[in-house]
Amino acid sequence: MNVLVINCGSSSLKYQLINSDTETVIAKGLCERIGIDGRLTYQKAGLDKEVTEAAMPTHKQAIQLVLDALVNEKTGAIKSLSEIDAVGHRVVHGGEKFASSTLLTDEVLKVVEECNDLAPLHNPANLIGIRACQELMPNVPMVGVFDTAFHQTMPDVAYMYGLPYEYYEKYKIRRYGFHGTSHSFVSKRVAELVGRPYEDMKIIVCHLGNGASVCAVDHGKSVDTSMGLTPLEGLIMGTRSGDIDPSIIEFIAQKENLSLAEVMNVLNKKSGIAGMSEVSSDFRDLLAASREGNEKARLAIDAFAYRVAKYIGAYTAAMNGVDAIAFTAGLGENNAMVRGKILSHFGYLGVKVDDARNEKAAGVESVISADDSKVICLAVPTNEELAICRETVALVK
Amino acid sequence: MNVLVINCGSSSLKYQLINSDTETVIAKGLCERIGIDGRLTYQKAGLDKEVTEAAMPTHKQAIQLVLDALVNEKTGAIKSLSEIDAVGHRVVHGGEKFASSTLLTDEVLKVVEECNDLAPLHNPANLIGIRACQELMPNVPMVGVFDTAFHQTMPDVAYMYGLPYEYYEKYKIRRYGFHGTSHSFVSKRVAELVGRPYEDMKIIVCHLGNGASVCAVDHGKSVDTSMGLTPLEGLIMGTRSGDIDPSIIEFIAQKENLSLAEVMNVLNKKSGIAGMSEVSSDFRDLLAASREGNEKARLAIDAFAYRVAKYIGAYTAAMNGVDAIAFTAGLGENNAMVRGKILSHFGYLGVKVDDARNEKAAGVESVISADDSKVICLAVPTNEELAICRETVALVK
Repeated sequence: MNVLVINCGSSSLKYQLINSDTETVIAKGLCERIGIDGRLTYQKAGLDKEVTEAAMPTHKQAIQLVLDALVNEKTGAIKSLSEIDAVGHRVVHGGEKFASSTLLTDEVLKVVEECNDLAPLHNPANLIGIRACQELMPNVPMVGVFDTAFHQTMPDVAYMYGLPYEYYEKYKIRRYGFHGTSHSFVSKRVAELVGRPYEDMKIIVCHLGNGASVCAVDHGKSVDTSMGLTPLEGLIMGTRSGDIDPSIIEFIAQKENLSLAEVMNVLNKKSGIAGMSEVSSDFRDLLAASREGNEKARLAIDAFAYRVAKYIGAYTAAMNGVDAIAFTAGLGENNAMVRGKILSHFGYLGVKVDDARNEKAAGVESVISADDSKVICLAVPTNEELAICRETVALVK
Repeated sequence: MNVLVINCGSSSLKYQLINSDTETVIAKGLCERIGIDGRLTYQKAGLDKEVTEAAMPTHKQAIQLVLDALVNEKTGAIKSLSEIDAVGHRVVHGGEKFASSTLLTDEVLKVVEECNDLAPLHNPANLIGIRACQELMPNVPMVGVFDTAFHQTMPDVAYMYGLPYEYYEKYKIRRYGFHGTSHSFVSKRVAELVGRPYEDMKIIVCHLGNGASVCAVDHGKSVDTSMGLTPLEGLIMGTRSGDIDPSIIEFIAQKENLSLAEVMNVLNKKSGIAGMSEVSSDFRDLLAASREGNEKARLAIDAFAYRVAKYIGAYTAAMNGVDAIAFTAGLGENNAMVRGKILSHFGYLGVKVDDARNEKAAGVESVISADDSKVICLAVPTNEELAICRETVALVK
């Protein structure tokens, strides 16, 4: 079965066409600057990347260009659109409505729309992508895969904030968590790699990319995660502050004479390791600066690692123990130094890092702990597109 | 030496006269409704409490009434004011200026005043109390004991937020932590009770009162604590939210049509276990309601305990291990059920609670773990007044 996986943002769109039988990518690419001018990137497996400047005033036109590229006589990956058997859409926020992936009927789409309120920047863009695909491929089944769904198993002590209860009743203010597709994919893969039943393990997954979150997976279920109502809470990220004293918002607003919306913009766009270091949101730049003696870059790296370590410690308490700790996404898969700094906190759990294994692990599935480590530690590349493809197949076949 | 310990708030003032040689309280009490009408409570050791309605338009007049009561011919604790050898003042915020208690000279008071900005509700009241005492007892040495001082040993990874660095440089936005006098007192007492050198131990203190915080004390030094720039951050408290997704502030402001100041008021005064349970900020009321099947009361208790457990887990990671976990303040000293719920998360650390010991421990120093527990767990009453007395004596003798 061929599944087209779509991740649609407000002015961009990533896609992959995946053969679900072989789990190989047939073609992939992205549309950028939708509604502005437009640029299409397309790459058939085994061939070079093609970049075309092409007008795409709407998402529908962008998707039309993707479909044209997929069936293009010269470099197309398929002969006709009838070879696309299903479309899997990433949807950021499923609120409390979606605890798993769902076939997107008109009825379901109305419910997805009700979640817009909780993710006003992301969900409307996801919906635009879904509707455009429906118009262009009216007979192809569409599946929605939600970033929040995996975390719907959290117990109330983990998802309820210390706020007036009525805010939960009236506005559904609670922890939802994100990166669920990745946390689910990686934790399952950890159980396979370790060779133990998923339902018997206590696993902590650290998804460390530009956005970053930690998740406690207890017996196959997410029981806590560091992102909250929105993706701002938790770890120090590329440009997001993560956890702060809530009073700081009023303090900054007064001192800097900013509106609440302006402070929120600072917390989302100008904070994190970029704001702390005054260097960059890219860890590679930070590492280079730190090596040259930049003290703020050193602080940002160390504070980032320290925060991750505290979350691992907290989630070990939440589950009363941990069997495996996994690192994924850009930083987690590739940065041995940061993994080492984080894991140096866990001697008391019997964690032993194998430095040579850790140094070598970059972008491939690797055990990074020593054979006699009491907790197995791994680097496991995430693959959200493949996870979306699998979820889609499970619902349409 | 006789030390008068003063804890001065905006409209109230608590005092104790302590004999520092025997460390016994000679007399104690409080002034309430200062500037409104006025009520003095006075109790000489061994005698009944006296409550007098007495006009106290200013703090100076309130302190004059306290001094009058202390030398009163009938029930006075001392014969003349010359028997007061020193005064120890609790000061809430010492910013980065004070890493220890300090003799209050005019120069020092100017520096304390510079910290007003960081604690606009508390520090000005503390200063009024100090100045009133200086006027009434011009020749008695005065010492300031800061709630924040003990935490000034935190490393930068613990005290720096993931915010633009300039906010630290311009406004000193960072984690300060509070309850320092209590965390210091209790952690030292733990080392004495365990019979090991304070400088060799890893101790976690849970100060669980109406305000609540957790502190990691590594080799005699505070290395992290759950309160932050202000006492709002961290645990779920009586009426304070503790940690939330920072985005929730904007979300509530929009949904409820509240100003930023109004949202902050909700987070400080109408949240915590009171807001979650819709019952009370008093744990005893919550326990009663929960026993009767009130589901929100059950949630508030469990969420409170879960948050404490996560902080203990995080600080165990911060210190790479823990030797002792201590509970103090109203709830921590007296509530076996909550202590038991919290400690049930730490089987993986080899924590074993002795249920009979835990049940019995109420308001007295008690080991609550079993003899073969790998981490010793204790209930240890805090005594901030005695700690202030000791700090004062150390500086004036």
